[in-house]
Amino acid sequence: MTLRMDLNSDLGEHYGAWRMGDDAAMLGIVTSANVACGFHAGDPASMLDTLRLAAEHGVAVGAHVAYPDLVGFGRRPMRLSREELQSDVIYQIGALQALARVAGTKVTYVKPHGALYNSIAFDCGEAQRVIDAIRSLDPELALVCLAGSPLVEQAEASGLRAIPEAFADRAYEANGALVSRREVGAVLHDPAEIAERMLRLVRSGAVVARDGSEISVRAESICVHGDTPAAVEIAEAVRRTLRSAGVTLTGFMNTSAG
Amino acid sequence: MTLRMDLNSDLGEHYGAWRMGDDAAMLGIVTSANVACGFHAGDPASMLDTLRLAAEHGVAVGAHVAYPDLVGFGRRPMRLSREELQSDVIYQIGALQALARVAGTKVTYVKPHGALYNSIAFDCGEAQRVIDAIRSLDPELALVCLAGSPLVEQAEASGLRAIPEAFADRAYEANGALVSRREVGAVLHDPAEIAERMLRLVRSGAVVARDGSEISVRAESICVHGDTPAAVEIAEAVRRTLRSAGVTLTGFMNTSAG
Amino acid sequence: MTLRMDLNSDLGEHYGAWRMGDDAAMLGIVTSANVACGFHAGDPASMLDTLRLAAEHGVAVGAHVAYPDLVGFGRRPMRLSREELQSDVIYQIGALQALARVAGTKVTYVKPHGALYNSIAFDCGEAQRVIDAIRSLDPELALVCLAGSPLVEQAEASGLRAIPEAFADRAYEANGALVSRREVGAVLHDPAEIAERMLRLVRSGAVVARDGSEISVRAESICVHGDTPAAVEIAEAVRRTLRSAGVTLTGFMNTSAG
Amino acid sequence: MTLRMDLNSDLGEHYGAWRMGDDAAMLGIVTSANVACGFHAGDPASMLDTLRLAAEHGVAVGAHVAYPDLVGFGRRPMRLSREELQSDVIYQIGALQALARVAGTKVTYVKPHGALYNSIAFDCGEAQRVIDAIRSLDPELALVCLAGSPLVEQAEASGLRAIPEAFADRAYEANGALVSRREVGAVLHDPAEIAERMLRLVRSGAVVARDGSEISVRAESICVHGDTPAAVEIAEAVRRTLRSAGVTLTGFMNTSAG
Repeated sequence: MTLRMDLNSDLGEHYGAWRMGDDAAMLGIVTSANVACGFHAGDPASMLDTLRLAAEHGVAVGAHVAYPDLVGFGRRPMRLSREELQSDVIYQIGALQALARVAGTKVTYVKPHGALYNSIAFDCGEAQRVIDAIRSLDPELALVCLAGSPLVEQAEASGLRAIPEAFADRAYEANGALVSRREVGAVLHDPAEIAERMLRLVRSGAVVARDGSEISVRAESICVHGDTPAAVEIAEAVRRTLRSAGVTLTGFMNTSAG
Repeated sequence: MTLRMDLNSDLGEHYGAWRMGDDAAMLGIVTSANVACGFHAGDPASMLDTLRLAAEHGVAVGAHVAYPDLVGFGRRPMRLSREELQSDVIYQIGALQALARVAGTKVTYVKPHGALYNSIAFDCGEAQRVIDAIRSLDPELALVCLAGSPLVEQAEASGLRAIPEAFADRAYEANGALVSRREVGAVLHDPAEIAERMLRLVRSGAVVARDGSEISVRAESICVHGDTPAAVEIAEAVRRTLRSAGVTLTGFMNTSAG
Repeated sequence: MTLRMDLNSDLGEHYGAWRMGDDAAMLGIVTSANVACGFHAGDPASMLDTLRLAAEHGVAVGAHVAYPDLVGFGRRPMRLSREELQSDVIYQIGALQALARVAGTKVTYVKPHGALYNSIAFDCGEAQRVIDAIRSLDPELALVCLAGSPLVEQAEASGLRAIPEAFADRAYEANGALVSRREVGAVLHDPAEIAERMLRLVRSGAVVARDGSEISVRAESICVHGDTPAAVEIAEAVRRTLRSAGVTLTGFMNTSAG
Repeated sequence: MTLRMDLNSDLGEHYGAWRMGDDAAMLGIVTSANVACGFHAGDPASMLDTLRLAAEHGVAVGAHVAYPDLVGFGRRPMRLSREELQSDVIYQIGALQALARVAGTKVTYVKPHGALYNSIAFDCGEAQRVIDAIRSLDPELALVCLAGSPLVEQAEASGLRAIPEAFADRAYEANGALVSRREVGAVLHDPAEIAERMLRLVRSGAVVARDGSEISVRAESICVHGDTPAAVEIAEAVRRTLRSAGVTLTGFMNTSAG
C-alpha cells in the first residue's frame, strides 16, 4: 500500500502593495493552497495571481476564510453574530470561487484562518455556524480542522468531510494540543528534525510530544508555512523527505498522485 | 402583442448598522434587484437578507458592482489598473453568487454602480475591462447599460447581452443624454408625470426631452429608485400605470409574466 | 445650592452616504456630544459637520473612541494587543482634536463606545490600557464611565478625572447593574416616566430598580439617545423636566450654566 | 557659507502584519520622515513605532497624507469633493499629531502622497483645498512640493511655507518635469551617479536632464526611497557624499546641524 499525504500552506496573503510569503516557491512544494479571501488578507488582483499559479501547478485550492479584520490579520478574537459569521463565510468562499473559475481551477475545501481557526476548534457553537454556512453553500466542500480537536468529529457528524491537519513546525503537548506560542520551544526550526517528525507521523500516525512521550496524531494533511525563506526551506525538506520515503504527495480530494 | 418591461432598482445598500432604502417595499414593486456587493455598500449579512426577500418575491438578481470606495459610496471617479478592475468585478459577482445560492436564487446580470457606471458608459477602454471580466466568469450574465450609450453596442459586439435602461425620474437632453444632476430640473418628482413618461417610453420608445422635443430611447428596463418614501411612491406609480395599461412587468431574462 | 447635570449623547455616527441620528436636533438638547472618530462610525467630513454644529450650540465635545470595526459598528467584542489598543485610542482622539480645532472647539473628554465601553467598565487590564493611552496624550482629558463600575475609581486612582454616567432609558438591577438588553423591560420608552426617574436621580442620587427597591446611582452625566424620533422626544422630556425643576444643565467641564 | 540640505523619505508604510521598507535603517540616514497616516498605509501601532524611532534619531516628522485607498496604496487617482478632501487631510494630520505627541515629537510639515501628490502639483483647484485644509488647522505647517511645479508658488502665495523637493533616483526632462515612470531610464539605479547628481544639485541648483542639458532645480529637500535594500544603499550614498563635501544635512525647519 502506498502512503499518501497532503501538504497545505497559507498563500495569497498579500494586500495591495504589501507582499507576504513566496507563493511561487510554495506552489512548487505543496499540494493544497489555502488562499486568503480578502477579510484578513488578499486583494482580488493578488488572489487571482495566486489562483493562476495554483492552477498551473495543479495545486488544490481552499478558501482561507477569516474574521473581517484586515489590520489585525484575522488573528484577533472577535464575537460575531450567527448571521454575520455565516454570511461572512459564504461571501468569502463565493468571491474565491469566482476568481478560481476565471483562473481555471476551483475551490474544493475551506480552512478557517487565525483566530477563527483557533476558536472553532473548541467552541462547538461557533463551529456549527461555520459548518452550517459551508453546507448551505456546497456540502461537497471539505473542512480542514486541527487534528485531535472536537471539530473533526463535529464536522463529520454534520455531514461535512473533515480533514484533520498536523503542523510541521509546532511542538505538541502530551495531550495532543499544540504547545502555546507563548512558550519556549513551541515552534521548531530544524528542517531535518521537522521532516523526520512528519515522516514518522505519516508512517505511524505518531509524533513525539515535548515531554518525550509518543502521542497519536491522526492527520490527513500537514500544514507548512511559507512566509520566510527559512519556512520555505522547511517545507522543501518535508516534501523531499516524504517523497524519498515513497510517500505520495497529493491533495486530499485527489485520487491521482502529485 | 403584449408589451413587456422590466423595472430595476438599486437594493441591498445597507452597511452594518446603517440602513438605506426600503428593500421590502421595493421588492414588491420591481422585477429586478441590483444588489450591492460590499464595495460601495452591502455587508454580507444584509446582502443575504435582501437576497432572501428577492427570492421570496421572485425578483431577478443582478450584481451591483462598484469601485472599492465605501466611504464615497462608489460615487467618486477612480482609476484602477486593468488587473485591479477585472478582479474587483469578478470578486464582487462571486461573493453575491454564493449568497444568492444560499438564498435560493441566482445572479443573472451585472449592473455597475455609480462612478463606474457613468465611466464605462462612455470610456470604451474601461468598459472593455468590465465586459472581459464578466465574460471570463460567465458569458451568460447580461450587462445593464445606459440606454443610448456606446456601451450597449460594445457589450453586444463582445458577446454579452446588453440591457439598455432608462431612468424614470431623470430628465433627458435632446441628444439623449441625462440632464446633469447639477442642473435644475435634472430630477423629476411628480409620480403621475413620471409614470406617464414611462408609459410613453414603453409604448413608443420615446421620451420628451427638456427642450420639448421627442427623442427615441430604446430601453429594456426602467430604473426606479427606492431610497426615500417619495421614491417608493414614484416606483409604485410607474408600476401601477404600466400594469393598468396592460404592460407585462417581468425580468428581462424571464419568459414568464410577473 | 443649584443642582447641575450634564446630558450627553452619541453623535456624528454617520458614514459617507449613510445617516444615523438627528445631530442637529440633539445638539439643541444635550450639553456634551460624544463624537464618533472613524473606527465604528464617522467619516471625516461628517465628523467636521457635527463638530461645527456642536461649536455653534456651545456643546462640549468628547472623543467616542471604538474598536476598529466599522461593519460591526464597534459593538462586537474584540481582543486587541496593548500596543494596538493604545495607539488606536490615541489615533482617534488626535483625528477628532484636529477636526475640532478647525471647527472652533476642542475635545475635553473621552467616552469609549460599544463593546469597548462595556469591556473596560469591568476588565481592569484593558481599562488600564485605555487610561494610560489617554494620559500619555493629555491627562486633562476626562473619561466618561459607567456609574457604579470599577472603572470610575480606577480612572481616578490613575489620575484621570472620571465622569460616572447614568442611562436615561435603561432599567437597573437591584445591584446597580443595567438590566441586560436581552431581557424584557431593559429599555424604557415612556418620556414622562424616564424624565421623572432622571429628576429623582439628580435630586437624590437614586433610581428605582426593577424589583422596586431604591438604589444609589452617583452620576455626573446622563446619557440620552438620539437615533430615532422617539429617542429625541425622550431626550427633550428629560431636558425640559430637569430645567423646569431648576436643574442647571451644563457640560461637566464647564463652570458656566447652559 | 555652509551648504545645507534636507533628506526626506516615506516611512511608516507598514499595515498590520505587512511590512514595507526599513524604517530603522532610513531613520539613521534622513533628516525628515514623511509618516503615513492610515489612509494609504500605516496602522496606529506601527505609526507610533516609527514616530518613536524618529524621535530617538532627532528626525523631523511630516504627515504623509493620502487619498483613502488602502488597497491601492494611495496611488490611484480619485476625485473627492472639497469637503471630503479637506476633512480627510485634517483627520490624518491630527491622528499623526497625537501619536507624535505621545512619541515625544511633533508634526512640522505635510507631504501629500502618491496620486494626491501628483495631482495637486499641477491641479490648482485641488491644491487649494489641501492648502486651505492645512492652514485651517495650523498655518505653521510647511508643505513639501514637487520642485518646479506651480504648487510651490501657490502655497507660498497662500501663506504656507513651501518646501520644493527633488527626487534623488529620478531622471528629469529638459523642461524640469520628472521622466514618466512608464519610460525607460525614468528611475536611476547607480548609487555613485545618484549621489554625484545630488551633490551638484546642492552646489549649483542644477541637474543634468536626460537629453544632456543642464537644468535648474531649486530644491530645499531631496527625497530618497527606502523600500528596498538597494534603495537604502542609494540613500546612504547620497548622505555620505553630501556630508563628505561639507554639506550640512538638517531638517528644513531646523536651525541646528544634523
